[in-house]
Amino acid sequence: MLRRSALFLLVFLASGATAAADPWSAETLSTADALRTRALADDRAGPIVESIGRDVGPRLAGSDGDRKAVAWALEMLKAQGFANVHAEPVDVPRWVRGALSARIVGDDRDLVAVALGGSAGTPTGGIDAPVVMTHDIDSLRALPPEAIAGRIVYFDQRTERTRDSAGYRKAVRVRVYAATEAARRGALAVAIRSIGTSTGPVAHTGAQRHDVIVRRIPAIALSNDDADRLAARLNDGSAVRMHLVVGAHDAGKASSANVVGEIPGATGEVVLLAAHLDSWDLATGSNDDGAGVAIVTAAAALVKAVAGTPRRTLRVVLYADEETYAVGGKQYALANAAGMDQIVLAMEADFGSAPVWRLNADVPDDRWPVIEAMAQALGPLGVAIGANHEEAGADIGWQRARGVPLLSPLQDGTHYFDTHHSSADTLDNVDREGLRQNVAVYAMAAWLASEHDPGFGRMPVAPQ
Amino acid sequence: MLRRSALFLLVFLASGATAAADPWSAETLSTADALRTRALADDRAGPIVESIGRDVGPRLAGSDGDRKAVAWALEMLKAQGFANVHAEPVDVPRWVRGALSARIVGDDRDLVAVALGGSAGTPTGGIDAPVVMTHDIDSLRALPPEAIAGRIVYFDQRTERTRDSAGYRKAVRVRVYAATEAARRGALAVAIRSIGTSTGPVAHTGAQRHDVIVRRIPAIALSNDDADRLAARLNDGSAVRMHLVVGAHDAGKASSANVVGEIPGATGEVVLLAAHLDSWDLATGSNDDGAGVAIVTAAAALVKAVAGTPRRTLRVVLYADEETYAVGGKQYALANAAGMDQIVLAMEADFGSAPVWRLNADVPDDRWPVIEAMAQALGPLGVAIGANHEEAGADIGWQRARGVPLLSPLQDGTHYFDTHHSSADTLDNVDREGLRQNVAVYAMAAWLASEHDPGFGRMPVAPQ
Repeated sequence: MLRRSALFLLVFLASGATAAADPWSAETLSTADALRTRALADDRAGPIVESIGRDVGPRLAGSDGDRKAVAWALEMLKAQGFANVHAEPVDVPRWVRGALSARIVGDDRDLVAVALGGSAGTPTGGIDAPVVMTHDIDSLRALPPEAIAGRIVYFDQRTERTRDSAGYRKAVRVRVYAATEAARRGALAVAIRSIGTSTGPVAHTGAQRHDVIVRRIPAIALSNDDADRLAARLNDGSAVRMHLVVGAHDAGKASSANVVGEIPGATGEVVLLAAHLDSWDLATGSNDDGAGVAIVTAAAALVKAVAGTPRRTLRVVLYADEETYAVGGKQYALANAAGMDQIVLAMEADFGSAPVWRLNADVPDDRWPVIEAMAQALGPLGVAIGANHEEAGADIGWQRARGVPLLSPLQDGTHYFDTHHSSADTLDNVDREGLRQNVAVYAMAAWLASEHDPGFGRMPVAPQ
Repeated sequence: MLRRSALFLLVFLASGATAAADPWSAETLSTADALRTRALADDRAGPIVESIGRDVGPRLAGSDGDRKAVAWALEMLKAQGFANVHAEPVDVPRWVRGALSARIVGDDRDLVAVALGGSAGTPTGGIDAPVVMTHDIDSLRALPPEAIAGRIVYFDQRTERTRDSAGYRKAVRVRVYAATEAARRGALAVAIRSIGTSTGPVAHTGAQRHDVIVRRIPAIALSNDDADRLAARLNDGSAVRMHLVVGAHDAGKASSANVVGEIPGATGEVVLLAAHLDSWDLATGSNDDGAGVAIVTAAAALVKAVAGTPRRTLRVVLYADEETYAVGGKQYALANAAGMDQIVLAMEADFGSAPVWRLNADVPDDRWPVIEAMAQALGPLGVAIGANHEEAGADIGWQRARGVPLLSPLQDGTHYFDTHHSSADTLDNVDREGLRQNVAVYAMAAWLASEHDPGFGRMPVAPQ
């Protein structure tokens, strides 16, 4: 209660202090304050993130859970008072994890491991091969070919814990490229240290990028603890063999959908709020991206509840298949190419449930002062101004390439990679207080973007 | 570095400030200071806890891992310079976990669950029964018999996070008595919310107490997240059935051992340092009780390295089977009944690797001032004086009943129950800095106990 009272006081002080400099009317700013108050008092996002875990569960693109998710999202958006609720079809590649066991030959227990997205399977009965250790893609390239051919290559890249995603971004190249680069050099399979900051029995999956002319090979991620154990053994100079059984395989294509709903505005222009509906298959995806779905839905619904009809339409898009091949965002931009000019600003929530601490954007330089003013309005929520021309989200990136400016409220990622893409992405790892702050930030940002008269200009359009 | 420098300064100030009031000579206190300095600078316990995880692994009483652990402990104590290293045979009951699956009928995924120690198995093919929810043993007793008979009883007792073990002690009665009390009333099986503070896909096992005249039934613990999900369903008033397959079974008796080693003293008297060698079977038991084994071993070895020959022998006892039926401690007290009078003080390390923050004891009231003086010497390590007549350890409790006074350095348990008795009790969840502080505390306490001339008196002997 103390914390909330303190926030209210700051809200009061800040709204007085910033009004003169803001590119919004006093009435618009007063509505923004009301949005903040209501978002912190209510728990609009909580029941949505509960429901997606309970009523849908894991929802890997193309799976039964994915189909359930599309039906759930259509009903949920209607129940939240959205108009024009509909599904836009997306064909998604379907990958099936199957069973997995990985063991150091001679050990009496399996390693804690998961297959990476799109991994090939082993033959029935598995493979048994010597393990060679390397650090990352660059160190792999420095190895002589005979050190790789016929081996299982182990990549010992650790993910550094950071508040933004810098540690992850640096490490994730290993997950994305390890199998392709090792297969190119004759490796039988790859194992990587999980790209994630968990301890204990948690391994992190995630997408890979494959090359059409390189044979796909089995690719797994080990828990940090078992990675420590394996690395210590290899550092000792011991000869280590691994027995690996991976049942993963492709299973053709399936039908999925981007699910859309709107809070209609007074003009034909649109502010787009994005999250992705799919998740990995290891847990309920409560943070990735159940939280994002809940945040953008609750934020837009809250604007309707508090402000009535905004100037611009608030369009929530819950994208298909962000995780495995990211086809939902691309398909949305292709299918709605003609409507891109109406979208004045897009923002995405796909970084969990911890509070927003920074406001980044990717807008024309002459509009950056508007983002600065927006950050000032968000200041009482603990949000500071960040930087322009930063990445703002995998799904809306496709729209940026078609001229849409982007806003990026940055959630605190200190613990995000403890659960990301793993069996630990469960409801009880959601930050329930953080959710409220997120709804406040996204609702205020959507409202202020909606009411900002000149809009945010256009980004340079990439050549087609 | 700042932290260590600050500690050194405090050490210097404290040793000057407390010398006059202490029941030890200035030389003895100066050696205590040297122990502290060395313990914080060295990493004596770290390699031991690494080795028990790497070279032994899980070591449930009576298992192959348990036999490996006894052999490992004998070698390890010799390598650490202990004398009189030997194994004292202990017969242990052997329980085998087998496979487990638990699913809410109609769901498309299994619950995260583990069998409790000593659980009975289900028939092949499992059981399928309605679930009735209760809170704890008292609320179970209030249910009408027809609400229990033929059901699976679910106990929704949450474990509160506390710095000491108060939250655990309150909750753990459910784990210990649920199956017996439910079986007495005709239940087919019990499921409990894990006794533990983890989030994500972690379920916590642990011992149960059975009653010879009550049929043993299958007993499982669910992860907190899945317990939330099940409880929400039952709170809705939904009819819930569970399908449960438990492969657990007894497998007779096996030979294990208490492993003993000594740093010989100048007199026939003994200060005993205890930990337990066994662990649950779900992980490497790196905190429970790999850390304890490492702490008491490193502490005693450090006294030898720094002080040479202490007045009293420092005897390290690594007990068999603390976890499943706690027979090691009992057997030690029985087999060594004639030697109990030589043990002037016993202390145990069995609460993980986080720093000691409090010094409890169970000594005659007239010796409490000596414990207060000891706490003062430990003050620079962040240790405050606690209370007398507190519990001091499962293994050494049997010795207390035979007159031995006990010392209890209390480790910080805030996060201990996140990993306790679960697959998360891995090396990367060990507090490596905490280990050093623990070695400092146990080495200083053992040294000061060894050198305290009048000793600590005797506790009242329980009737046989």
